[in-house]
Amino acid sequence: MGLALAETLLEHGHPTTVWNRTPEKANSLVTKGVHRAGTVAEAVSASPVTIVCLKDYETMYAVLDTAGDALKDRALVNLNSGTPNEAHAAVGWATERGAAYMDGAIMVPPPLVGHPDSVFLYSGSQDVFDEHRATLAGMGDPRYLGSDPSLAVLYNAALLDMMYATMNGFLHATALVGSANVSAVTFADLALNWFMPSVVDSTLTEQAPDLDKGNYPGDVGTMEMNLNALEHITRTCVEQGIHSEQPRLMKAIAEQAIAEGSSGKNYLAVLEVFKKATPPS
Amino acid sequence: MGLALAETLLEHGHPTTVWNRTPEKANSLVTKGVHRAGTVAEAVSASPVTIVCLKDYETMYAVLDTAGDALKDRALVNLNSGTPNEAHAAVGWATERGAAYMDGAIMVPPPLVGHPDSVFLYSGSQDVFDEHRATLAGMGDPRYLGSDPSLAVLYNAALLDMMYATMNGFLHATALVGSANVSAVTFADLALNWFMPSVVDSTLTEQAPDLDKGNYPGDVGTMEMNLNALEHITRTCVEQGIHSEQPRLMKAIAEQAIAEGSSGKNYLAVLEVFKKATPPS
Ligand SMILES: NC(=O)c1ccc[n+]([C@@H]2O[C@H](COP(=O)([O-])OP(=O)(O)OC[C@H]3O[C@@H](n4cnc5c(N)ncnc54)[C@H](OP(=O)(O)O)[C@@H]3O)[C@@H](O)[C@H]2O)c1
Ligand SMILES: NC(=O)c1ccc[n+]([C@@H]2O[C@H](COP(=O)([O-])OP(=O)(O)OC[C@H]3O[C@@H](n4cnc5c(N)ncnc54)[C@H](OP(=O)(O)O)[C@@H]3O)[C@@H](O)[C@H]2O)c1
Repeated sequence: MGLALAETLLEHGHPTTVWNRTPEKANSLVTKGVHRAGTVAEAVSASPVTIVCLKDYETMYAVLDTAGDALKDRALVNLNSGTPNEAHAAVGWATERGAAYMDGAIMVPPPLVGHPDSVFLYSGSQDVFDEHRATLAGMGDPRYLGSDPSLAVLYNAALLDMMYATMNGFLHATALVGSANVSAVTFADLALNWFMPSVVDSTLTEQAPDLDKGNYPGDVGTMEMNLNALEHITRTCVEQGIHSEQPRLMKAIAEQAIAEGSSGKNYLAVLEVFKKATPPS
Repeated sequence: MGLALAETLLEHGHPTTVWNRTPEKANSLVTKGVHRAGTVAEAVSASPVTIVCLKDYETMYAVLDTAGDALKDRALVNLNSGTPNEAHAAVGWATERGAAYMDGAIMVPPPLVGHPDSVFLYSGSQDVFDEHRATLAGMGDPRYLGSDPSLAVLYNAALLDMMYATMNGFLHATALVGSANVSAVTFADLALNWFMPSVVDSTLTEQAPDLDKGNYPGDVGTMEMNLNALEHITRTCVEQGIHSEQPRLMKAIAEQAIAEGSSGKNYLAVLEVFKKATPPS
C-alpha cells in the first residue's frame, strides 16, 4: 500500500520522500524520482506532512520514535487499520510530540489508489485536512468525517461489516437457488440488477430518518410477520439441504427484538437489538 | 392480497369473478363491477384461468376440493407462499383434477400490486404462462423461471433471505457507527449511495460467473485476509459495546471455509460452506 501511495503522489507532481524498514522496496520509486531518506527523521523533516501506512499503530510508534523531535509542528496522517480506541490513543501520542494528527482509512486495494472515485476516509485534525486536501485528493476522493479521530477506522469497520453481511446474504441465497440447479449468473441478474437496488437499498435509504428517531411503525408489516418469513426461509434451507445457521441467527435476532419490546413494530426495530452488547455466554 | 389482485385485474379490463370464505370482504369489489360467485365451482367455471391467493397450500386444497370437477381442462395459478416441496406436491394434486398448474410468488406488498415494475415470479406449466401472460402482466411484471414448479417459491425464499441479510448488515453497521453518535442518515449517504452500488453489488455481479465455475482465485485477497478483517470487525463491535453475534458467525463461517479447504482462495469460496447442510448440533 505504501508503494501505491508514494507512486500516485509522485504522479500528481508532489515532491515525495519515502522511508521503509526494507529500503530496497523503494527501488522502483527512486528510479521514478522519489527521494529515499536514510533515516526516519530525515523523511519526516523533508515535508510539511508525513503520511504513514505501516502494519499497525505499534509499528508506527516504534518507527516514528526514532525520529527525535522531527514531528514537532508538522502534520501526521496515519492510514493503517486499527480500532477506535487505538485511533484515540494515537492523538495523545502525536500531541506529546507536537504533531497535528489526522487518522484515515483507505477503502480500496492498492491497484485502485489514485482513482478519483476511490474513497479515503479521514477524521481528527480538521486543520490538517484543510491544509493538505489537495495532496490527499491525489490518492483518492478524500472524505472528512469529523474531529473525533476514531471516525475513520469506525466507518471502515462498519462499511466492511455491512459488505460481508451483504456478500454472505447473496452467497447464501445463491446456494439456496443452486440447490435446484439455478446458476449464480441467472440468479444475480434478478437479485443484483433488480432486487438489491430497487427494493432493498431504496427502502433502507428512505427509512434512515426513522432509524434516527427510533420510529418503527408496523402498519405495513410487523416484526411478527418478518419472524414468520424468517422461519419460512430457514425451513426452506433445511428442506433443500443447505447451510442454515445464517437464517437461524436472523430468526433468533427477530425473536429477541420481539422479546425486548418490538412486537408489532416494523423490521428496522432490529437496530435496537444491535445497539446493545451481546451478553457474555 | 386477494383484494389487490382482483382490483387490478378489473382495472385492466378483465372480466373478474371472485370467491372468498368471508364473502363481505368482496363488497368494495362488487360495487366496482366484479362478479361475486356463490360457490367455488361457480367461480372456477367462470374463467379459463383461476388465480388463487389463500393462506397456504392446505387452504387451497380444502377450498378447491369443494369445486367438483370444475378445474378439469382449466388453468390454475397459485400465488400463496410455501416451500419447494409443497409446490412440487401441488402439481400432482392439480394433475389428478385435470388442471394445468403454475405456481407463483408475489414479490411486493398489496399496495404495489399493479405497478409495472412490481415483480411476480412464476414457474411450472409454460403453456399456462404463455396463454395468460397478458392477464398476469396486469398484476405486475411477470417473470417465468422455468418448468420446475418449485422455482418461484424457491427464488422468493432466496431473495428474502438475501434481503434480510443485507438489511441486518446495514442495521448492524448503523449501530456500530451510532456508538460514536453518527446518525443513520449520515451513514446511509456513504453506505447506500456510494458503497453498496459501486463496491459491493458491482463486485458480486462481476464475479458471478466464477461462482458457477467454483473458481475462487485468491490473488487479490485470500480467505485468511478476510478472516483477519472479520476478527478486526468483531473486536471493534466488542470495544464499542454493540451486539457481536452477527460478525462472530461470519468469522466462524470463514474459519469453516478455511478448515474445509478454501485456504488461500478468495472470499466467495464461502459459497462452498453454504452449499452443505448444517450438521445437526
Ligand atoms: N493492502 C490493502 O488492500 C489495504 C487496504 C486498506 C488498508 N490497508 C492497511 O494498510 C496498512 C498496510 O497494509 P499493507 O497492505 O501495505 O501491508 P504490508 O504489505 O504487510 O506492509 C506492511 C508495512 O509495515 C512495515 N512494517 C511491518 N512491521 C514493521 C516493523 N516492526 N518495523 C518497521 N516497519 C514494519 C513493512 O515494512 P517492510 O516492507 O520492511 O516489511 C511494510 O512497509 C495495514 O494497516 C492495512 O490494514 C491495506
Ligand atoms: N400480504 C403480502 O404482503 C403478501 C406478499 C406476498 C405473498 N403473500 C402471500 O399471499 C398469501 C395470502 O396473503 P394475505 O396477505 O392475503 O393473507 P390474509 O390477509 O391473511 O388472507 C388469507 C386468505 O386466506 C383465506 N383463508 C384462510 N384460511 C382459510 C380457510 N380455512 N378456508 C378458506 N379460506 C381461508 C382468508 O379468507 P377470509 O377472508 O375468510 O379469512 C383470506 O382470503 C399468503 O400465502 C402470503 O404469504 C402475501
